[in-house]
Formats: sequence, structure tokens, C-alpha cells
Amino acid sequence: MAEKPLILVCNDDGINAPGIRKLIQVMNELGEVVVVAPDGPQSGMGHAITIEGILRCDPIKIEAGPQKEYACSGTPVDCVKLAVNVVLDRKPDLVVSGINHGSNASINVIYSGTMSAAMEGCLEGIPSIGFSLCDYSWEADFDPALPYIRKIAEKVLVEGLPQDVVLNVNIPKYRGEEYKGIRVARQCRGNWEEEFDQRQDPRRRNYYWLTGKFVNYDSGDETDQWALENYYISLVPVTSDLTAHHAKAKLAGWQL
Amino acid sequence: MAEKPLILVCNDDGINAPGIRKLIQVMNELGEVVVVAPDGPQSGMGHAITIEGILRCDPIKIEAGPQKEYACSGTPVDCVKLAVNVVLDRKPDLVVSGINHGSNASINVIYSGTMSAAMEGCLEGIPSIGFSLCDYSWEADFDPALPYIRKIAEKVLVEGLPQDVVLNVNIPKYRGEEYKGIRVARQCRGNWEEEFDQRQDPRRRNYYWLTGKFVNYDSGDETDQWALENYYISLVPVTSDLTAHHAKAKLAGWQL
Repeated sequence: MAEKPLILVCNDDGINAPGIRKLIQVMNELGEVVVVAPDGPQSGMGHAITIEGILRCDPIKIEAGPQKEYACSGTPVDCVKLAVNVVLDRKPDLVVSGINHGSNASINVIYSGTMSAAMEGCLEGIPSIGFSLCDYSWEADFDPALPYIRKIAEKVLVEGLPQDVVLNVNIPKYRGEEYKGIRVARQCRGNWEEEFDQRQDPRRRNYYWLTGKFVNYDSGDETDQWALENYYISLVPVTSDLTAHHAKAKLAGWQL
Repeated sequence: MAEKPLILVCNDDGINAPGIRKLIQVMNELGEVVVVAPDGPQSGMGHAITIEGILRCDPIKIEAGPQKEYACSGTPVDCVKLAVNVVLDRKPDLVVSGINHGSNASINVIYSGTMSAAMEGCLEGIPSIGFSLCDYSWEADFDPALPYIRKIAEKVLVEGLPQDVVLNVNIPKYRGEEYKGIRVARQCRGNWEEEFDQRQDPRRRNYYWLTGKFVNYDSGDETDQWALENYYISLVPVTSDLTAHHAKAKLAGWQL
């Protein structure tokens, strides 16, 4: 690469979140960094885009350092679209999203704004990675994960990624000992079982808070969830082709 | 089936949209219908869920008929979660979402609230289908599509669907002649190329509207886009397992 690689950094916890500040710190060692991230929390936004309203995207400086920063009023996917089409004057060499505060393993990938931002980079033809730490705390200890994040990002900068593939990297919550390493895995079968918390407002009208717990339906030892429970960093290649190719023959036999 | 099948109807254009009213009409012929749909437009919301705010879900009656109806303040995915966990007293036999005003073929599947609602039904273990008409007009002519929608829904009620698979059904805009039939297809490779419309507000601050056009990168004749352009109804099986299984071996060779 003749010039320094251009690295776009995004997330879904908002531009002030500790996780993205750590990711910027690592990326500043690898290239020229531009941050375009939501101006507030956008967790659970999935692949949402803003089509009914307007978008803001303004320069800001949250922390000292060589990175350029922009805060965006929209979703994580809006941030990547605005970055690529409005903010940047050339196509980035890498999109990184995160570090998310909380797991994006298993079915979380489908709800995750962090992973949707990375997927959007992939759709734009840019090698893209989402990073998540399985620790929801705002004061989570990201530092032990940083050398692994750097190694994975460096590898992707050199090797690229297969067409239509984005990486979903999840890192166990740090428990005071060295991580066991990185495992390539598949998405675990699992789901959130919801328990809505029903309440009444001061005018005696019902409302609900979404809550729930993750349930693992998968006993395989080659899943991301298995890797994380066994203190490995999981690396799942994720595709933008949602076709269930194995199911086409059965449907074709339906003679509709 | 001993009792009438229980059918949950959702969409992303809102409970008042003509498309969902037509879908309710067809489903009333097939079973006991409960509608839980957004109280306003939720297009482009992808698999977003509401975790930062509260949800409302109240009974409403938009039109005469045997169906029960509820309007929900949240996203399409919130609607399905609330329906299954709060509104319904048994698990539905079928979830149908739509009829969307506009195409959800190719990469649109990933942004679509309509398809995310159907996917959420699938994650709950319920046979689920998303229906879309490739006509954005509020006054679109849905009627010629209704016999096909009925036929597909009846088939799914009898046959079920493979585990972790949801159907994405797209119907060409009606052009005054009989549809050519139904084709099982794969998701077309394509993407939206954005052109942000930059404007200044009355205080001379920049803002943006997201616009763009769909570009087809795929010359295959087995794609949903090909089927639609050739006046077939497309039927794509979509999976909730986003793993790029073909890419695992390459990544495993990286020796990270």
C-alpha cells in the first residue's frame, strides 16, 4: 500500500462510548483514521436507515489524537453511508465497528447496530469487521483485547476478505487471565426469550419494557457461543447473501 | 388442524396501509386473524428493536371484519415480539408480513421492516412469510396478487417451512396481464448506490436526505430480481444463520 490505509471507525453505542475510544486508539497505530459515529446510543437498531427524516453529520473532536471525527444523528448504517458518500474523499481500506459494549454472538448479530455498520461497509465493497466485548459495563476492561483486535485488523488489511463476507469478532469478558486465543466459528443457534415488563403510566394506561434472556439451542463445539464460554475470542464470517440455498429444492417441489 | 389456524399479521408501512388491509382480507379466509402492526410508517427499520424507550400496544379497530387488531408504537420486530409474548394466548400457526408497498428483493431484504417482522416470526419457531409488491404507490393494485398470496400461505400452513427459514415473496407491479407464475429464486447480488441530497436549514446548518438507486450486480437468471423483471412472482427462502460457511476454511488458515 503506497499511502497509509484509510480506516473508517463506527459503532452503535455512540461516539462518546469507551469502546469506540479504545478502537480509535488501536486504529491510529495502523492508518489514517476517520470516525463517523452516532451522536447517542443506537443499540439494537439492526440494519435500520433513516428515510422518513433528515440526517445531521457534523465535525466534532471528542479526544486528542490524529483521527478526524464526525457525529451523526442517524443509525450506525446511516453513519457508514454518510462516511462513504459525503465525508470521505476516497474509499476506505477498512471499516471497523465497535468495540461494542456487550455480546454480538449468535442471533445478536441480526439485531446489532455494530454489526450492521460493518455489514454496510461490506456491501460497499470494503473489508469490514465488527468487534464486541461480552461485557455490558460502561467501565469494561477493553485493554487485554486490544492486541487481538490489532492483529485481526492488520491481517484483514493485508489479506482482504472474501466477497460479501464481513467478520463478527466477539471477545469474552476479561477475567484476569490471558485469553486462550482466536477460534473461527459459526453462528450459534439461539434466541432471546422475551419477558415484557408491563407497567401503568400515571394516567393508568399500559406500557411495556422489552426484557428477556438469551437461550442457547445449540450443543455444537464449533459455535461462537461455545468459543466465548471457553474463553476464546470468536471470529465468525458473516454473509450478506441471506438465501437458504439448501431449502430451494424443497420449495421448487411445491408446484405452486 | 383441529381448530382454525391462528394467523398473526404484521407489516412496516403501518396498520392503516392499503397493503396490510388486503393481506388481512386474504388471511380472514384462511384462519383466525390477529393484527399487531406499527401505528405509523416503519419502513427501512430493518431488525431494529426498542430498548431505550417504552412500547405501547393497544386494541384498535381499523376496519370491519372478524380480525382482532392492535396498534403498536414500536418497530415491526417489536410488534411480533409483543404479539407472541403479550397479546396472543397461544403460538400462532403462521406469521405473515406485508403486503409491503415496494420491493424487498435482492439486498432490500436486509433493510426491510416487513421481512424483519417475518424473520422474527421464524426465530420464534413459527412458519413465516413476507409479501411485497414492487409498487411504491399508496394506490397500488394489489388485487391480482391476492390469489397467489393465498396459495402460498395455504401451502405453508400445510407443509410448514424448514427450520430457521422464512419466505421472501416479491410480486411484480401489475401491468394489466396475468402474472407468469411463481419462481423459487436466490437473493440477487446488488446494492443501493447512495446520493445524499445536501441542504441548508434556515439557520444555515447542513443536513442530508438519504436517496439512491438500486444497482444490480448479478447477471444470473435464477435470482429474485431476474424473476421480477420477467414478470414472475419470486419466492426466496431466507435463513437466520448468517454464517458464511464457505469462508471458514480460509479464515482458519490465517493462523492468528
